[in-house]
Amino acid sequence: MRIAVDAMGGDHSPREAVRGGLQALAEKNLQVIFVGREQEIREELTAAGYQGDLGAQVSIVDASEVITMDEHPATAVRKRRNSSIVVANRLVKEGAADAVVSAGNTGAAMAASLLTLGRIPGIARPAIAIPMPTLRGVTILLDAGANADCDPRDLLQFGLMGAVYAEAIMGIASPRVGLLSIGEEEAKGNRLVLESHQIFKESDLNFAGNVEGQELPKGACDVAVCDGFVGNIVLKLTEGVAGTLLQQIKEILTGSLQGKAAALLIKKELQALRNRMDYSEYGGAPLLGVQGIAIISHGRSKAKAFKNAVLFGAKAVEENLVTRIRQAIEEHRDPAKQ
Amino acid sequence: MRIAVDAMGGDHSPREAVRGGLQALAEKNLQVIFVGREQEIREELTAAGYQGDLGAQVSIVDASEVITMDEHPATAVRKRRNSSIVVANRLVKEGAADAVVSAGNTGAAMAASLLTLGRIPGIARPAIAIPMPTLRGVTILLDAGANADCDPRDLLQFGLMGAVYAEAIMGIASPRVGLLSIGEEEAKGNRLVLESHQIFKESDLNFAGNVEGQELPKGACDVAVCDGFVGNIVLKLTEGVAGTLLQQIKEILTGSLQGKAAALLIKKELQALRNRMDYSEYGGAPLLGVQGIAIISHGRSKAKAFKNAVLFGAKAVEENLVTRIRQAIEEHRDPAKQ
Repeated sequence: MRIAVDAMGGDHSPREAVRGGLQALAEKNLQVIFVGREQEIREELTAAGYQGDLGAQVSIVDASEVITMDEHPATAVRKRRNSSIVVANRLVKEGAADAVVSAGNTGAAMAASLLTLGRIPGIARPAIAIPMPTLRGVTILLDAGANADCDPRDLLQFGLMGAVYAEAIMGIASPRVGLLSIGEEEAKGNRLVLESHQIFKESDLNFAGNVEGQELPKGACDVAVCDGFVGNIVLKLTEGVAGTLLQQIKEILTGSLQGKAAALLIKKELQALRNRMDYSEYGGAPLLGVQGIAIISHGRSKAKAFKNAVLFGAKAVEENLVTRIRQAIEEHRDPAKQ
Repeated sequence: MRIAVDAMGGDHSPREAVRGGLQALAEKNLQVIFVGREQEIREELTAAGYQGDLGAQVSIVDASEVITMDEHPATAVRKRRNSSIVVANRLVKEGAADAVVSAGNTGAAMAASLLTLGRIPGIARPAIAIPMPTLRGVTILLDAGANADCDPRDLLQFGLMGAVYAEAIMGIASPRVGLLSIGEEEAKGNRLVLESHQIFKESDLNFAGNVEGQELPKGACDVAVCDGFVGNIVLKLTEGVAGTLLQQIKEILTGSLQGKAAALLIKKELQALRNRMDYSEYGGAPLLGVQGIAIISHGRSKAKAFKNAVLFGAKAVEENLVTRIRQAIEEHRDPAKQ
């Protein structure tokens, strides 16, 4: 199992990418291929105390260019053929790696995977699937931002892909797939959701119906489907609301002597709560619908997030995620099926 | 100043509506007109210890019908001419009341106001404006659910109305109006937001540009504009994320002896935090764009929420909210303006 890591992507690269990759090696029998400026990666490997040879468990593929956060994604990907993110995806395309992990410019990571790996036949629009922490565990939200405007067929494909993800990676049999909407009743929603509701009902999905915003954090469904505009707002708003609330609680617990005393008493439980809310525990989000495993991580990823993204990529390869999505899409297209 | 209160609307009516109305009277020189089943309202007034006469500060207008939560809003409003919500709106239309407050079926409250009061000339779609607590105070979010599908002109009118609201009610000079989107750059968003961004830029609004989900709880703008589908999801998701997080913190603070000891130390601060997040502090949401002040409150409203909604309605009347919205819309339509 060989995982290509775009060592130059993210706010803390290459340091955190290199450290995270090495941490993944310590947990699982893998090969990690760091892609980026070879000299910088070598220095980070040394700084991280890596003693082994290059070529076996750890290798480097040199890529001199880096796509920055402010470049136009598709243009940059087309122009910079030797950028770390494009090279890392090319390794997967050419069979030299089994999965790619990147924490760089999200748009560029998507564009690189779309243009290099291509789409699974029958998939109109690949989608980013994000695991969101809930009271009951995790809900897979998709699309989390790849496609701002969608049609009902796109949403159905997101549902099919999300269900495969939940089954393959999370081990949920017959995952409950909900449509994010503004009322439980099937007559509630915008045009997109009203139409989608009907085709979800007719599909093979274990359709949980419409799910409202307040039910999402409670874990009302295993997979929540929406267009990428709504999904990206949901993702970031959740981060923002939880973040500002935890920030205010932190201020209470550091702002006075009583607060500090209280903090000591509930330190462990609060840390566990913060961990449950922490994106880096979940290791990133796959771009579902492309012909390969491509994991997109948060731009702010630190070593732990990279480690989890690499392990997640390995799991997705082991579980044949791409093949299973291809099968689900084929089955759904086949009118002779059951 | 006469405020009509739909005494039958909401999960805890008529009790909480009556108590809230009375509490508002204790704080401000007003007349409250309770609309609903007279006998039930009389009993609640007695139960609440109301000693005064009927007819002066407190009066009752009998309305025998009630629209329930599961009825189809527009149909029910058209059919039940003698329902409390329709009668309460008619009082405003006929000049017998200055504002109406309801916590019933939101769709029915909207339909009753739309059909009875009518729209301000030039307004295509009235919108629900919700005050959302943020780190810096309050952001007005609209549309919070009246219109699931919108066009750019609707969003511009929401921005104009929201700015008038923020100025008139919250005293903010030249409020910053943001467009909720999935990236700060003007090239980020769905088709609706991309087009809206351009007409916002050309408008007289103090346009703050696109605002992302994570910036909303930080108070990035005074008014946040989106379609009613996105707005309703934002509203309910915020409620859900904050609610589940506070629930988990409550469990920490009640689940062990240490937790309970910690709770005692930070009780006051935690309560203040909960109050800041509490919708009932803000008293409800006006339906902006109709010819009259119509305040729609949360179905779960208790007395405090009703009290604040009545006081909010009175403030909106004093500040001539309807006239000021009419002027803002007229000025914007007048090509000779400026």
